[in-house]
Formats: sequence, C-alpha cells, structure tokens
Amino acid sequence: MPGYQRDDLTAEQIEQQKSLYDPFTDAVRELVDAAIRTEVGEDEIRTAQAEVEGIVARLRRSQLEGSYGVRFGATGRGRPWGNAVVGVRNAVAPPLVVERDDSGRAWSDFHLGAAYEGPPGLVHGGVSALILDQMLGEAAGAGGKPGMTATLTLHYRRGTPLGDLRAEAWIERSEGIKTWARGHVSDTEGVTVEAEGLFILPRWAREQLAADEATPKFFE
Amino acid sequence: MPGYQRDDLTAEQIEQQKSLYDPFTDAVRELVDAAIRTEVGEDEIRTAQAEVEGIVARLRRSQLEGSYGVRFGATGRGRPWGNAVVGVRNAVAPPLVVERDDSGRAWSDFHLGAAYEGPPGLVHGGVSALILDQMLGEAAGAGGKPGMTATLTLHYRRGTPLGDLRAEAWIERSEGIKTWARGHVSDTEGVTVEAEGLFILPRWAREQLAADEATPKFFE
Repeated sequence: MPGYQRDDLTAEQIEQQKSLYDPFTDAVRELVDAAIRTEVGEDEIRTAQAEVEGIVARLRRSQLEGSYGVRFGATGRGRPWGNAVVGVRNAVAPPLVVERDDSGRAWSDFHLGAAYEGPPGLVHGGVSALILDQMLGEAAGAGGKPGMTATLTLHYRRGTPLGDLRAEAWIERSEGIKTWARGHVSDTEGVTVEAEGLFILPRWAREQLAADEATPKFFE
Repeated sequence: MPGYQRDDLTAEQIEQQKSLYDPFTDAVRELVDAAIRTEVGEDEIRTAQAEVEGIVARLRRSQLEGSYGVRFGATGRGRPWGNAVVGVRNAVAPPLVVERDDSGRAWSDFHLGAAYEGPPGLVHGGVSALILDQMLGEAAGAGGKPGMTATLTLHYRRGTPLGDLRAEAWIERSEGIKTWARGHVSDTEGVTVEAEGLFILPRWAREQLAADEATPKFFE
C-alpha cells in the first residue's frame, strides 16, 4: 500500500516537528474561522487575500508532490498528520486528540467552531458522521482489530450545538477480519448522534501481516 | 429558529459579496493545502505563522459574535455561506457547487485535495459521509421535501481516490414530513460510496410554514 511511509523518526524528532507544526496549523485554523466571521471592509479583505497568497507562494517553493499520507516508525503508531479529523498539520481537522485503551475504546473531548456549521448554530450532520467514522475506526484499531470502514450508520437524536463536545466509541464484537464498533457524540445534556459501523481489514494489510512486514496498526 | 436571518439583499448585492469573498476564501483553502504539504525550513514556517496571526488579528477587529448561520431573502434560497460542505466563506468546505432540479435530484462535480485525506491517497471515509449527508439533504430540498437528517447509512464499495469526483442524490420516496433519499460518490471508474438517509421536516419549520411565515426552503 503506497502512502504508508516508514521513516523511523525518533520520539525526539517527532516532538520537534510537532512543536513546529502545531502552532502554525493552529494559526491557519484561526484564519479559517476569522475568514467566515469577519466583517471588516472590502479593502481589508483584499489586502488579507494578497498577503495569504504571498505566504502560500513561499510555502509551495518546496512541498510534497501529493498528500501527506501516513508516516510510521519501528514502534508506536502511525502519524496521519494530513488526516481530515486528527491531522495535526491539517487545518480542516479540529483536530481531535484521541485517547484509547487496549480493550478497544476510544474517546475525545474537542471543540467545534463556526467552520463546522450545518443548520444555524448546529454542527453539520455530516461533520458528526466524519468524526464518528474516525472514532469507530480508532476503537477498532485500539482493540487490535484495525480495519477500513465497510458500512456506517448514523442516528441523529437531536441537533448537536457548536461548542465543546465529546465523542466515544468501542468495539461491539469481532469475527476474523470483521469488527463491529459503536459510538456517539454528546454535549453536556447527553447523546446527540449515535453510530454503528463495520470495519474490515484490507487484503493488502492481511498479506503484509502474514509476511511479517512492518505494518501500521491503524488505517486512518 | 434563530440563525436563519432574513436580510433581503438584492441579487446584485449578493453577487458583489460573492466576488469579494470567493477569491479570498480560495486563498485560505490554498493555505490549508500548502500547510499540509510544505517542506520549507523551520524559520520560514515560523515567519509564515507570525504573518498569518497578524492577518487574523486584523480580520477579528470586526466580526460576527458566533457562526455565520444562514441568510435568506424574499426570493431564492438561503445563503449558508458558513456551511462545512457548500459554504463559500468556509475554507473547510471544498466547497461543493450543487446543481438541482425540481424532481428532487441534486448533483455536483468537485475536487478533493490533500486536506480531505484518510488512508494515504484516499478520501477520508467520513468526508464521503459529510458530502453525502449534504447531497441527500439537497435532493430532499430540491424536490420540495426539505428536512434535517434523522438517519444516514453509508456503504463503502472501495476506496475513493483524492482528486476529481462526482456526487449525485435523489428522493426515493416521501410520506408527510418524512423523505427518504439515496445517493453516491463516484470517480471515473464508477461508484465508490453509496448512501441512504431519512430526512424529517423539523417542528419549528412546520409551525412557520403553517403560519405562512418566511421560511428558508433548505435546512443546510
């Protein structure tokens, strides 16, 4: 599977990269939010646009040909830094910081601002789906039963307000290469969206595991 | 329902705003992409960060207190410019430009770059869910049967490659306040993800319609 790139960075090198990219990507997230909400005048918008275009031109002088992919080393889990939900270098991602345990549970407390809106003041239903797809996959991986999403079903109980939220997920059961997981998003009043999904270990990963090749433990 | 704000802008005023915000938000989208893919040195990242923070500070001098919501006028549909899928002022949104007809069909050709990645080189499964939630809701609204998502089920047939894609959706059937819609995402090789969903007209909208109050025709 191309794109899972083994780079064997040390823990120290990874921390160094994170301390560089975390605050930079946070600044870009703030810009995304400000671009939606700003009410400054036309000239100021045009000035900001020209400056942003200048920054982009400089950043693009040296860049990856395609997307970020997933880097991984000899130990630890992969670094999906371009991932649309958890990617620390991706300003589309809130990003979620996911905690997990070996029993196949994953959970995350996070904040969604103006950039995740669907109906006024509410989280876009599809954003809850995006987050739950990631969380159920994280639970499957955490329990040693990684897979890619085969089916996912969302039940919307009520609107999810923009703001501070929590997501939880867990493995329901597992049979060979198939893992069923469940989860939900909640606010302080309780559950707003529930999800269930089937995750299947892809063939290329089964072949790599059979050949005892280095394989990432999660398929973000 | 707060957040659906009637502003009665003229068609000309709307076009004027779009011609200001479209290229600005596109520049921010380019920055999101460049932030993921850049390989320039640490000093250049720090310089870019400081500049972005400066732009944000200026944009925030005058801004909406909360999220953008949906603006609408006497005629035409609402302007969900902060929407996470179609919002022209939201750099998280690709954004999709959705076409529709009265029979309850909606379709869109769009491009997903590095910011929408899940597994390496592939669209995040949850991003396909996000797009299909929007598209099925658009189909329901286009057919005069708007609603908010109650349930949504995704079937992943194979990985969706990053790049040029298409999404289509249509109303399957409708009973009173309930509408069932289906749709899919496809690449040049065919369908990659299928979806079915149930959309229900919320009580507040039923009450407004009964009272013949101005009501947006879509619930993004």
